[in-house]
Amino acid sequence: MSKTEGKGRFNRPWASSKGKGLWMSIVLRPNVPFDTITKFNLFMALGIRDAIQQFSEKRVTVKWPNDIYIDGKKVCGFLTEMVANSDGIEAVICGIGINMNQSQADFTGELIEKATSIRINSNDIINRYYFLQALVKHIEYRYNQFISEPFSTIREEYIDASNIWNKELKFTENGNQFLGKALDIDNDGVLIVIDNENQQHKLISADIEF
Amino acid sequence: MSKTEGKGRFNRPWASSKGKGLWMSIVLRPNVPFDTITKFNLFMALGIRDAIQQFSEKRVTVKWPNDIYIDGKKVCGFLTEMVANSDGIEAVICGIGINMNQSQADFTGELIEKATSIRINSNDIINRYYFLQALVKHIEYRYNQFISEPFSTIREEYIDASNIWNKELKFTENGNQFLGKALDIDNDGVLIVIDNENQQHKLISADIEF
Repeated sequence: MSKTEGKGRFNRPWASSKGKGLWMSIVLRPNVPFDTITKFNLFMALGIRDAIQQFSEKRVTVKWPNDIYIDGKKVCGFLTEMVANSDGIEAVICGIGINMNQSQADFTGELIEKATSIRINSNDIINRYYFLQALVKHIEYRYNQFISEPFSTIREEYIDASNIWNKELKFTENGNQFLGKALDIDNDGVLIVIDNENQQHKLISADIEF
Repeated sequence: MSKTEGKGRFNRPWASSKGKGLWMSIVLRPNVPFDTITKFNLFMALGIRDAIQQFSEKRVTVKWPNDIYIDGKKVCGFLTEMVANSDGIEAVICGIGINMNQSQADFTGELIEKATSIRINSNDIINRYYFLQALVKHIEYRYNQFISEPFSTIREEYIDASNIWNKELKFTENGNQFLGKALDIDNDGVLIVIDNENQQHKLISADIEF
């Protein structure tokens, strides 16, 4: 449950002090076609958000597509990968890195402004076993929803939980950068963006900076 | 280059006597969307077929989607798997198991009727290093083709190399079995099949028995 060196998207390092952070991988084997991976990631986001919310006094939000935030700072990054062939999905692996019990002093350098932990937004030290129990429960709920429902079922819930609306964002997609605003997430989980030159983009994955 | 226990599709065992069979995995990192995996598998099939043909006196054929045959018997099975997330493909892994230098006596039990080796269809013992060199060359050629061309470019070549035409076949797809005939492979690499009740099927993956 702890790791000194984690890996985030784009191989970014993920700080995880011993005993304070939680780094885990959940392996699932849904019998679904491999093009549902993007949808799976959206359901997972809500499951992880719900678990963190249960322990946080402040509102927990989703930064599409792979981060969880509290109070404008990142508390968790997750990444859904799959092993698949033409027969379908062999396994879906959701790697989750959560800042759990770090204090403000544990974040140094540029992390001071960017990172937070559940503990910082909670009354008490987080019991890692209780947290894990809650995480598994919420992920199980969203997994069953993913198996049986389209994304449209959770679309409004996802939009409500998101923290990317009504602000200027910097997008990086396939090496291209542009400034713009997020307008909507459609029924397929695709993010609709309008850039500063009034061009519309439809994104299934991208990096967003506030 | 040898392994006593290999794994085929559906976890079938793959016999590989020490020093006689070749079991290898090729890892590639194409910058393509993850729904191109089926197309990739079709290009790989021709690359592997071409390499085996270079050492075989008899015609080498492709049994869609994952086997290579000589003289009505299986000489090679391969399987394309990928690791991917919403950002795209992380890696494509093509696992290839080839019966190279087995003699007829090496195949026992039900394998006598079903399995062959390159050696059995060749003048001489196969030099594994020459073979590997040829395999890498042919796969590299097909890989570059895959990156730059649609499946339609190799469609006729693929159909010509296939051994599934004009015979009654037993198909297993997602646990459903039916008898039928293969009619065509379309421009997307989808196999068009007509079953014995005159129903048409479009398959992107299935198990075929002669």
